[in-house]
Amino acid sequence: MSTAIETLQEHRAFGGVMGFYAHSSSSTGTTMRFGVFVPGGAASSRPPAVYFLAGLACTEETFFIKAGALAYATEFGLALVACDTSPRGLDLPGETESWDVGAGAGFYLDATVEPWSAHYRMGSYVNDELPALVEQHFPVAGARRGITGHSMAGNGALVIALRNPDRWHSVSAIAPICNPSEVPWGQKAFSNYLGPRSAAWKDWDASELMRRRPHPTTILVDQGTTDQFLDTQLRPEALEAAAAASGQALRLNRHDNYDHSYWFIQTVIHGHLSHHARALHGPGRRN
Amino acid sequence: MSTAIETLQEHRAFGGVMGFYAHSSSSTGTTMRFGVFVPGGAASSRPPAVYFLAGLACTEETFFIKAGALAYATEFGLALVACDTSPRGLDLPGETESWDVGAGAGFYLDATVEPWSAHYRMGSYVNDELPALVEQHFPVAGARRGITGHSMAGNGALVIALRNPDRWHSVSAIAPICNPSEVPWGQKAFSNYLGPRSAAWKDWDASELMRRRPHPTTILVDQGTTDQFLDTQLRPEALEAAAAASGQALRLNRHDNYDHSYWFIQTVIHGHLSHHARALHGPGRRN
Repeated sequence: MSTAIETLQEHRAFGGVMGFYAHSSSSTGTTMRFGVFVPGGAASSRPPAVYFLAGLACTEETFFIKAGALAYATEFGLALVACDTSPRGLDLPGETESWDVGAGAGFYLDATVEPWSAHYRMGSYVNDELPALVEQHFPVAGARRGITGHSMAGNGALVIALRNPDRWHSVSAIAPICNPSEVPWGQKAFSNYLGPRSAAWKDWDASELMRRRPHPTTILVDQGTTDQFLDTQLRPEALEAAAAASGQALRLNRHDNYDHSYWFIQTVIHGHLSHHARALHGPGRRN
Repeated sequence: MSTAIETLQEHRAFGGVMGFYAHSSSSTGTTMRFGVFVPGGAASSRPPAVYFLAGLACTEETFFIKAGALAYATEFGLALVACDTSPRGLDLPGETESWDVGAGAGFYLDATVEPWSAHYRMGSYVNDELPALVEQHFPVAGARRGITGHSMAGNGALVIALRNPDRWHSVSAIAPICNPSEVPWGQKAFSNYLGPRSAAWKDWDASELMRRRPHPTTILVDQGTTDQFLDTQLRPEALEAAAAASGQALRLNRHDNYDHSYWFIQTVIHGHLSHHARALHGPGRRN
């Protein structure tokens, strides 16, 4: 297995380096792209990394361009990692026909149904392959990692952390799809990737997983009250019910008059990186 | 003359409102788009506005999406305004054939040559029409304004402020084209918009104007040392020479290893808004 990476572009930013890279992924069997921001002075300190998973139709660039997070990552001494939202360029049947399944809509799970199962393995990619690659090639800590995401990827971040609590030491989500098994976006994706409703759906559904076994840390979730997808797709009340049932420590903040856009992400990302910094640096570092 | 505006979209952000609007412009004879960020609590305080002019190929959205500036505008109590980089949709001969003249490349001047002269009047638009419109429709201060811009629009911001020092009370630029009359981008644009080299070129050239009459405030300029356009298009040394000749107070900072991208803008925009806040709020406000 090759673990070489190709540098697509690198830019100085905030005294650190904002870079975009490509590599041949063993999880997806495709060339995958990802971005890494390493804050200034990181070579000696190996900061922990926070992985941001992006929502439907985004790429590895979206978060870095739109969230305004680099200043805060620098402030908190965190590296940032973001990857693409699916494999690309496979030309599978149905891969590019709709925006909410296939390309740009990998849902951060491991598909089990043809034609997706050989390639749409974003769950393994994000949990295993990408951190190993990043920790091999960049000056970031290997022992402690944070994960967060928006919308489709809010479920993705919660699911990956809940399935692998020993690998992810801080977790948060912004306007997540909390209970994909019960909403149109999730049902369409799960039907394609996992087949008709079965126990397998519960293995990739944040509320179902949280109900089964809580994550050992407090999970932060932010949600706008005028989010255009709140009632039909997001269902934060399902996550709250799951947390109550299993004893998950959950801080779910509702923000009046905020919608589903990156303007909301820009607004709350400082709080998320602060949440991750506290968990990843421990009480010894003042931030 | 109608001064009505159409709301295209509005989003809550940082406790304020990020909005995009359209109106029928008397300067350009077209529908022009612009964005305004009004920070939280502004309705009572009417904050001063800083106008950010964007570079080649950008739109009214680019700065707001990519610069990460809303947090800092909130911190400093400033409104932000950005407009499109040219009239659109005119279908003039040559308007969309190249990326550095015509659509997306208005150069913030008033063209005097056909086919541009009837519409490409971004100089008057930014100096006169847009502030009047913004101050009519939004809770921002009318008495004090700041202006800044990047690359093509770095020259634009400097030129508009130097031509109209009574209207613009703080000025800065990021990686500006400092002396467009002497570089390929500027020569191509000026030849198209103003005709063959003449005295008129000097009226839209930051270094020529600064040499003639300094702005009464200290001008801040940031420039990356590995900017890919530094030697061929930007010429900060011409601006320094002009400042020395006329006594212009100029703080021109060179930043090692930074390039021409929005990653550089993200990095320095906090310093620019701080510069504008100090000038626009006066010493009475602590920032």
